[in-house]
Amino acid sequence: MNLFLALQSADAALKRRAMAKAITLLESTRPDHRLAADDLLTELLPLSGRSLRLGISGVPGVGKSTFIEALGLYLIARGHRVAVLAVDPSSSVSGGSILGDKTRMEQLSMDERAYIRPSPSSGTLGGVAEKTREAMLVCEAAGHDIVIVETVGVGQSETAVAGMTDMYVLLQLPNAGDDLQAIKKGVMELADLVAINKADLDVNAATRAQAQITSSLRLLGFHGHEEAQAQWHPRVLQLSALKAQGLDGFWAAVSEFRDLGRANGRFAEKRRQQATAWMWDRIQAGLKQEFAADAAVRQALGPTMDQVLQGQLAASTAARRLLSLFAQRNSGDKHA
Amino acid sequence: MNLFLALQSADAALKRRAMAKAITLLESTRPDHRLAADDLLTELLPLSGRSLRLGISGVPGVGKSTFIEALGLYLIARGHRVAVLAVDPSSSVSGGSILGDKTRMEQLSMDERAYIRPSPSSGTLGGVAEKTREAMLVCEAAGHDIVIVETVGVGQSETAVAGMTDMYVLLQLPNAGDDLQAIKKGVMELADLVAINKADLDVNAATRAQAQITSSLRLLGFHGHEEAQAQWHPRVLQLSALKAQGLDGFWAAVSEFRDLGRANGRFAEKRRQQATAWMWDRIQAGLKQEFAADAAVRQALGPTMDQVLQGQLAASTAARRLLSLFAQRNSGDKHA
Repeated sequence: MNLFLALQSADAALKRRAMAKAITLLESTRPDHRLAADDLLTELLPLSGRSLRLGISGVPGVGKSTFIEALGLYLIARGHRVAVLAVDPSSSVSGGSILGDKTRMEQLSMDERAYIRPSPSSGTLGGVAEKTREAMLVCEAAGHDIVIVETVGVGQSETAVAGMTDMYVLLQLPNAGDDLQAIKKGVMELADLVAINKADLDVNAATRAQAQITSSLRLLGFHGHEEAQAQWHPRVLQLSALKAQGLDGFWAAVSEFRDLGRANGRFAEKRRQQATAWMWDRIQAGLKQEFAADAAVRQALGPTMDQVLQGQLAASTAARRLLSLFAQRNSGDKHA
Repeated sequence: MNLFLALQSADAALKRRAMAKAITLLESTRPDHRLAADDLLTELLPLSGRSLRLGISGVPGVGKSTFIEALGLYLIARGHRVAVLAVDPSSSVSGGSILGDKTRMEQLSMDERAYIRPSPSSGTLGGVAEKTREAMLVCEAAGHDIVIVETVGVGQSETAVAGMTDMYVLLQLPNAGDDLQAIKKGVMELADLVAINKADLDVNAATRAQAQITSSLRLLGFHGHEEAQAQWHPRVLQLSALKAQGLDGFWAAVSEFRDLGRANGRFAEKRRQQATAWMWDRIQAGLKQEFAADAAVRQALGPTMDQVLQGQLAASTAARRLLSLFAQRNSGDKHA
């Protein structure tokens, strides 16, 4: 099957198989697959990038699956094609805490206008994130104009998802006060939009939480005074995914964010920054890998780290020593 | 002069000259100086680490210098020896926006129990931060038991300072609401303590701001439920540096933080994490430098980046191509 052509096929079943195949190819660690995957990516790239990329995050129990299914159904009913991807660095250990279960989003997954793919399960967050970024390009090339990237609060996965999407949404529960603290430091500030799910269960609590989060978001972050006028101010909404309530308001806010970002150039600028950051992130990861694979470095790393932790060697001195070992490597040592 | 011995001299003037000389040596970019500096660092290390490292940050106008001078005088009056360092990556451009001015902290700088050093002015934040971390070790070896590292809100300098200190303090003004937004996203969450300076100017506004920031801090961050009991909850205080009011309360909070951290092991653990992160940070910087200096990479980097930004090449493909150029380098190309 020619994946490039099949991804643009009018035959829905063929296209879906091509998407699965392409993403599996991208996820493969075999060097020959990697070369083919890079060629495919380069071919697909001109067809990609035209979707809205939406990051959605929230602790277990917040109703992420229910929300994404309700939103997905809402969007395909309005003529969109939706893809749902996930970044879950724990999936290789736990066997997948999100999206691994086939019974999740049952209705959405049966619709041919939707494509749902579980998280890749390659060890590191960087690796998982890279595969998901690339899978996003495949979904876009196959004509999905809304790509949802889901994550659960594990390690730095929220930052990774915020760094690959146009808009980052945080789901919360209507419990005000202490219970809201179940999010990790630094996650709230990533949010362009906070949606309080299950708001129908306790309208008063949801309204209190909404007011509290709104004022905290206003207090705790800005991008710069000079651009304050054309800038998006993070917003807090109430909804009930189970009852499909509040989706109109949610989508109106997302659309407003997107339109503002397109009008003020922030949207395109963010994608350029993300592409640059992504490239350097992967270069850094590759350099670190080569460094750690170097025979002399590998031998010295443990004892040197021990000296640093025992206060016998300054961290910067240790870094300089290890770097100088690496710089002395000869061609025969290379495992690149 | 033997710097190692001079730093521990009972002669205050000699010790002070040795500190200045040692820090200048550490800041030098000459390779022979660097080697001598590393030897000195390794010699000093067993004498270092016994201070409380206090990061202090706040936007221009918040009264940072006045506060640090008041706090410094308060502390030396109580038998402490204080060092004040700075991380200001803009200083190489602007000629120093903080601590460059000799008339700042006039009273404190004249006291021999205090040592004040302006920010190093080597270009990158990473470089400036490294020099300041190393200078901190010199100050500690010379017997300063409180090291204050000051920063102004430039780029990522707050994160760098929070990453090299035991406790991070954010100074704020008593204006509630929008004016408080003059801090950058992500800075408030670093704070272990927020001090509202100039609280005497408008007690009502200061009290409102205190309540607002307290509730936001509670809402926006936690380290983990399981350690909630033995955990520090960021606190918000009012004070007036100009009138030296509130310093008792401030120092009581700092001491409580330090005692809790020592009791629950968080203090030592944080320093180990910082040392590890610092080592890897410098290794990454060194690898990136070697990468960028490679002839083949240097030639390909610009055009490749352009292709990425124009959507002709996936960022991950670009990274792999550049890494493979780097891996093919031969010994003759090295500029290590």
